[in-house]
Amino acid sequence: MYNIGIDIGGMSVKVGLVDLDGNIIEKNVEKTIPGYENVVNNMFSQIERLLASNNLTIKDIKGIGVGCPGAVSGQKGVIDILPNLGWYNVPLVKLLTDKFNVKVVISNDANVAHLAEAIYGVAKNVNESIMFTLGTGVGGGIVINKKLYEGTDTKGAELGHTTLVLGGKPCSCGRNGCIESYISATALMNQTREEMLNNKNSKMWEYANGDVNAVNGRTAFECAKMGDASAEKVVSNYVMYLAESLMNMMNIFRPQMLILGGGVSGQGDYLINRVKKYCAKYDYGYHGAPIPEIVIAQFGNDAGIIGAAALIEQ
Amino acid sequence: MYNIGIDIGGMSVKVGLVDLDGNIIEKNVEKTIPGYENVVNNMFSQIERLLASNNLTIKDIKGIGVGCPGAVSGQKGVIDILPNLGWYNVPLVKLLTDKFNVKVVISNDANVAHLAEAIYGVAKNVNESIMFTLGTGVGGGIVINKKLYEGTDTKGAELGHTTLVLGGKPCSCGRNGCIESYISATALMNQTREEMLNNKNSKMWEYANGDVNAVNGRTAFECAKMGDASAEKVVSNYVMYLAESLMNMMNIFRPQMLILGGGVSGQGDYLINRVKKYCAKYDYGYHGAPIPEIVIAQFGNDAGIIGAAALIEQ
Repeated sequence: MYNIGIDIGGMSVKVGLVDLDGNIIEKNVEKTIPGYENVVNNMFSQIERLLASNNLTIKDIKGIGVGCPGAVSGQKGVIDILPNLGWYNVPLVKLLTDKFNVKVVISNDANVAHLAEAIYGVAKNVNESIMFTLGTGVGGGIVINKKLYEGTDTKGAELGHTTLVLGGKPCSCGRNGCIESYISATALMNQTREEMLNNKNSKMWEYANGDVNAVNGRTAFECAKMGDASAEKVVSNYVMYLAESLMNMMNIFRPQMLILGGGVSGQGDYLINRVKKYCAKYDYGYHGAPIPEIVIAQFGNDAGIIGAAALIEQ
Repeated sequence: MYNIGIDIGGMSVKVGLVDLDGNIIEKNVEKTIPGYENVVNNMFSQIERLLASNNLTIKDIKGIGVGCPGAVSGQKGVIDILPNLGWYNVPLVKLLTDKFNVKVVISNDANVAHLAEAIYGVAKNVNESIMFTLGTGVGGGIVINKKLYEGTDTKGAELGHTTLVLGGKPCSCGRNGCIESYISATALMNQTREEMLNNKNSKMWEYANGDVNAVNGRTAFECAKMGDASAEKVVSNYVMYLAESLMNMMNIFRPQMLILGGGVSGQGDYLINRVKKYCAKYDYGYHGAPIPEIVIAQFGNDAGIIGAAALIEQ
């Protein structure tokens, strides 16, 4: 048996055939086109092509999982809002069920990336984990007892929208001081640019070829590793924001594992070691409660397909 | 059938006989005495007395639940540290099981107070709820699917120890800016005193008989209701801290209900209405996601006994 994992993005729809160990057997990608009906019809043919090219029929498929950005109502099986594609109230679960007559489950992209790790990846041996996806925004995931915890109408696990700095930077959600405004890759780039504008001697100018618009999520980290004091200041603050956010999750969930994904997590052990050092100094848990592991997510661009397939297995 | 609920406090141990609808049939209270062995022996005789006076035997008892302050290891059945009584590593579950040979479950007092509400009280009709106990400190409770979520080694649900004000007031846990330092009754009293010292014309001086040490958790609220601008400032800030803390919980858990207990919750609807007004302006959830109910806990001093008994029913 196999599952189908569908990863809806802003630019493309990826559909994968995934075995029950989480391996992608084959995948294909189609650019998104205007009109949800057209995209859904493409999904149908993508699935049929995958089946045909692997000599399978729909009877070999346990279920179809779908991950997508935007607001999803998992219980109703509806995509409420997918702003990038201009989709509103698309009953995707019904459309896929009517066509293929198998179990169909939908969730948001951050949850799905987390579930890939929880069922098949770095967290496969633990029951409870929390994940931050540090990208354009901050996605959150909560896995309890090997299942996604998503809250009423699957509108929970918005971990990025928790205030850490009361009255702090405005967040897209309408509040101020949310961790998304401090620990996303976007926030890190803003912090980097701000420091560069304050310090014309920073090595970060050289790294960015003298162009503040050429800054990316690696600029501060790479220059800090080269010993630039100004970059070190950015990294040290970023580590503080991230570690404080993680400690909040430790005290709330006391999970066995905290997982970091998304662009910034590419800093790997360098980032993890600095975060652990900060936590060791301040964390409640470091004085009696069990210390969760802090690890980097294992799946990169395939997390969407693998995690969507995992929705059938949770 | 019945359950026994034991509420260990700093000054006394309350033991109650509780029916399966959460009604206390009879309870008794004994002052704590030095030496955990003596207290445990008293518990034994308190239980035996309750059984005898109700013409019951241990065969009529499904189980014994225990709630206590301090750090508890629910999985091991051990009280790790109960600072007020000087108890360390007391294997209470084993001691009670050896004596009575029934199911025994232990948890911390905030969790237990929450479970009373979740099984028998204001949250009995919802599956997911979050509770803050606004007392000397801030206790937290997480109920998912009608069960306490307590995290690894039952060291989670420390909701009071989540940072809301980065670099803010020092907290007893070693971090800074935890919500405990802003929304506990202790914090409210500090905020009240601070404002009084800044404003000698405040009506709060009159309410406290000119003595800053006579301030309590009602001082600011009662004077704000009488129209004192200085008290209103204290209340308005307190409401902001509390509402921001609750909105964090909404975005993390998107529960069906948020429950307030402890001394400050005595402000009832006045407090709830102000909190809701603040949330309506800023909350993520108020723009699309389901809005959790915010309610006051129903059980007062009996929450410890009823919730301890509920540990057997979750």
